[in-house]
Amino acid sequence: MTTQLLSRIACKSLLPKVVAQPEQLLPTLLKSKSIGWSGFTGVTYPIRALQPLLDYAEQNRLPQVDHKYDLFVCASGGTITESKMAELGLISSRVPYQVSKSVSKKINSGEIAFTDTHLGMFPQEMQYNHYRRMNNGRIDTVVVEASAIKEDGSIVPGASICVTPELVQLADKVIIEVNTQIPSFEGFHDVVTLPLPPHRTPLRVSSPSDRIGQTSIPCPLSKVAGIIEGSSGLFISANAKGDAATKAIAGWIVEFLEHEVQMGRLPEALLPLQSGIGKIANSVIEGLDQSNFKNVSVWTEVLQDGFLPLFDSNKISVASSTSIRLSTEGFEHFFNNWDFYKSRIILRQQSITNSPEIIRRLGCISLNTPLELDIYGHANSTCVNGSRMLNGLGGSGDFLRNAKLSIMHTMSTRPTKSDPLGISCIVPRVTHVDHTEHDMDIFVTEQGLADLRGLSPKERSIEIIRKCAHPAYQPILFDYFQQAEQKCLKRGCAHEPHMLDKIFKMHEHLETDGTMRIQKW
Amino acid sequence: MTTQLLSRIACKSLLPKVVAQPEQLLPTLLKSKSIGWSGFTGVTYPIRALQPLLDYAEQNRLPQVDHKYDLFVCASGGTITESKMAELGLISSRVPYQVSKSVSKKINSGEIAFTDTHLGMFPQEMQYNHYRRMNNGRIDTVVVEASAIKEDGSIVPGASICVTPELVQLADKVIIEVNTQIPSFEGFHDVVTLPLPPHRTPLRVSSPSDRIGQTSIPCPLSKVAGIIEGSSGLFISANAKGDAATKAIAGWIVEFLEHEVQMGRLPEALLPLQSGIGKIANSVIEGLDQSNFKNVSVWTEVLQDGFLPLFDSNKISVASSTSIRLSTEGFEHFFNNWDFYKSRIILRQQSITNSPEIIRRLGCISLNTPLELDIYGHANSTCVNGSRMLNGLGGSGDFLRNAKLSIMHTMSTRPTKSDPLGISCIVPRVTHVDHTEHDMDIFVTEQGLADLRGLSPKERSIEIIRKCAHPAYQPILFDYFQQAEQKCLKRGCAHEPHMLDKIFKMHEHLETDGTMRIQKW
Repeated sequence: MTTQLLSRIACKSLLPKVVAQPEQLLPTLLKSKSIGWSGFTGVTYPIRALQPLLDYAEQNRLPQVDHKYDLFVCASGGTITESKMAELGLISSRVPYQVSKSVSKKINSGEIAFTDTHLGMFPQEMQYNHYRRMNNGRIDTVVVEASAIKEDGSIVPGASICVTPELVQLADKVIIEVNTQIPSFEGFHDVVTLPLPPHRTPLRVSSPSDRIGQTSIPCPLSKVAGIIEGSSGLFISANAKGDAATKAIAGWIVEFLEHEVQMGRLPEALLPLQSGIGKIANSVIEGLDQSNFKNVSVWTEVLQDGFLPLFDSNKISVASSTSIRLSTEGFEHFFNNWDFYKSRIILRQQSITNSPEIIRRLGCISLNTPLELDIYGHANSTCVNGSRMLNGLGGSGDFLRNAKLSIMHTMSTRPTKSDPLGISCIVPRVTHVDHTEHDMDIFVTEQGLADLRGLSPKERSIEIIRKCAHPAYQPILFDYFQQAEQKCLKRGCAHEPHMLDKIFKMHEHLETDGTMRIQKW
Repeated sequence: MTTQLLSRIACKSLLPKVVAQPEQLLPTLLKSKSIGWSGFTGVTYPIRALQPLLDYAEQNRLPQVDHKYDLFVCASGGTITESKMAELGLISSRVPYQVSKSVSKKINSGEIAFTDTHLGMFPQEMQYNHYRRMNNGRIDTVVVEASAIKEDGSIVPGASICVTPELVQLADKVIIEVNTQIPSFEGFHDVVTLPLPPHRTPLRVSSPSDRIGQTSIPCPLSKVAGIIEGSSGLFISANAKGDAATKAIAGWIVEFLEHEVQMGRLPEALLPLQSGIGKIANSVIEGLDQSNFKNVSVWTEVLQDGFLPLFDSNKISVASSTSIRLSTEGFEHFFNNWDFYKSRIILRQQSITNSPEIIRRLGCISLNTPLELDIYGHANSTCVNGSRMLNGLGGSGDFLRNAKLSIMHTMSTRPTKSDPLGISCIVPRVTHVDHTEHDMDIFVTEQGLADLRGLSPKERSIEIIRKCAHPAYQPILFDYFQQAEQKCLKRGCAHEPHMLDKIFKMHEHLETDGTMRIQKW
């Protein structure tokens, strides 16, 4: 055992569980049918403990003897492992969110049964015993990355928590991979054990800085099937930089927020921000850095590189998140300013970060990117053409339903092979509804910002087409709206005018002609 | 002033505001542009105070001089008044839910702009100043029915609260109609004043019996523009009785709940029930009366006749609701057992009854009736053919998203003029999505119960068609699913198989041929 590893395990009665070679963990994994592991958006997930399973499967052609796994994995953690498992045909089912191309390919080929659910609901759905693929509410084996183990055997995660506390609670066996390549993150986390109804009580978080739990995840010693030293990790490339168009989107949003402050609808420090991942989100964060807002707080799922300068300039005073997802350079800066960030960041489990109770209480400002939006205010976050799953819903529904301001931002168009404006992200009707017109406040594209608050569907339609649609698609969408309205007025059904026989004509045209630009309806 | 009225107004400094004739209130109403009033599902709404406006409008052809009103009205209160206003062309816009045929006709003819929103979100959207039709966050005049006025001028509502506290808070002027035909309901209500973010704190309700507020609605004396004696009220006909089919639905649900208790997924007293209005809901309540459950609690929006026997037999121990909506006979029984019911019923405002925080904490069992359901688990609660508004979303989204068990019950078919099985309530895709596949647990029809928990879309599809669809539609729906699956498998997009060009073919066929029973896809 290395001294590094020894120094991380304060619970000496767990030392006999330490194994030198990951192969020693293989029997436990082979005896399992349902498996879970930790990690969120690419950080703090176990790799070494799972590797022998991949090797064994490859050598023994496991799937042929029908040994497939049901995966209950924190959102998008451990993509490398998961991708390999999918390629080997080892995954029978998956829940709740993934970013692996290999996995989504098998989901769409019908090989993997994928249950797409709200990140904030997933932990309690497991606790409720709602998954028949669990073993009567239990998971056979859960593999967790730790940055330390405390005296009482409780687990200090690394740079993310996600759904790890619930996975450990529901696991029959726990394998711990202690990552000695990162510092102990003790003190960053706030972990709670949530009782089930009718025994629940209020979550006493009234500000992103409130702590209500403990700094580590309780884990009965008897559950621990093995401990191994690991070095998995923090291998994230730098975040995508914004361009002129995403900067335009950020500009609209900052201008809007400034206006809301001026109107007295938002305090000067705004309200806690939730922001997703990606180019647009990064531009928005950069835009805030150049704004006049001060002492802003953050209540989100993922902290990215873009946030760091805002901490450094004191624009952000405190942030609560379920994961810190930085680039190599970002983590270097983070580690070099450890105490500074530790006093400003709290890591919480998903059931808290994505809790409707807290999001609504805090009155969050929520920013998310959809796949497509429609003229009446619905959003598709998951399925291309209503059928092909991309990644999953994630936490978008938790936030968009409960935020004070629910903002969706996207480019107004996307290119196809034959037409640089081939796809309009604003359509008559989204092909899959993940968020309804009842939940949306603001749509933004590089073209402009549509304020949908308090409007009727027809008013929304005009606002969205005028402000958000690309000029190439404005006449097409207005034409749809007007034709639909005329037809529906004749039949007394013009609350939200549609022509069901033409509603997806733009999508069908894309399939046949490589562009949504149709000549006529 | 009658002694009756005098006895209801404990605040003597308000006595000079009492007017003998409703016409004296007319100038206040005529000077207003935005109006709100109290009431929920037909009980406790003001009639007499608003009558002069209707008379005046009729005599002076008000709409011709373009005097229209923006209505911010508690859900479906005051339907008689509202219908008359719609017929007179007096309504410019309406929010958030209505049950008037005249109003929905004008919504669908494009005359009334209708904003359909969650009942639990509506009060805070007003407080957030999200409605441009308010006067910078204010409502010109609010008319409230009271059963008494306390010494401090605060208002004791009658048999409902709904959104009255927020309306009074946001009103520039308040007109109080004191209903002396009903007893003072003092002691039934639990009223809270909710601060806005960032000043919100937890709502300390951990059981339906918890009280966290006051027994009346605060109202500054200076706001009171007039007080009038009224007698509006409790004119509800007896609830629709169940039939063999709705009893079958109830049977499936009771059997399912018993099974959940047996499996240890529900406690023996179940969890707080939410139930809607209508024939199916009544049958379910009757079914519970014949079950073995005891000490059940209720957390709902409306208490109907069907609940009374369950109180009487001690099956229900406590109920929280925003309104008591009984038939004449029901209210007679209620008044005759006043103390008994008062010790078991708490009336709360909508922002509490429909609070995601509390619904999720309590782990409610939520039962609602949709317009149509689809094979992958989406529900339409509002718009026929995606365009024609019926009543609105109501509180369905507040409950279905946050309940522990989200149950949708409907007949599997509805008749058309030419085909007794002309409409299938299970379709390939609902024409308007109000609730997504991510929120649904159980679908029930008279045919059976589909348990969707933890399933992937394709698994759900088979479960729903097999268990819930009418035998006349099972082959049609299976055929759609299989054809869609084959096509999508070929193109690697078979997570949730659809054929966009045929997705609404059953609805189109209904329009042209009077039935959804198509010969082929």
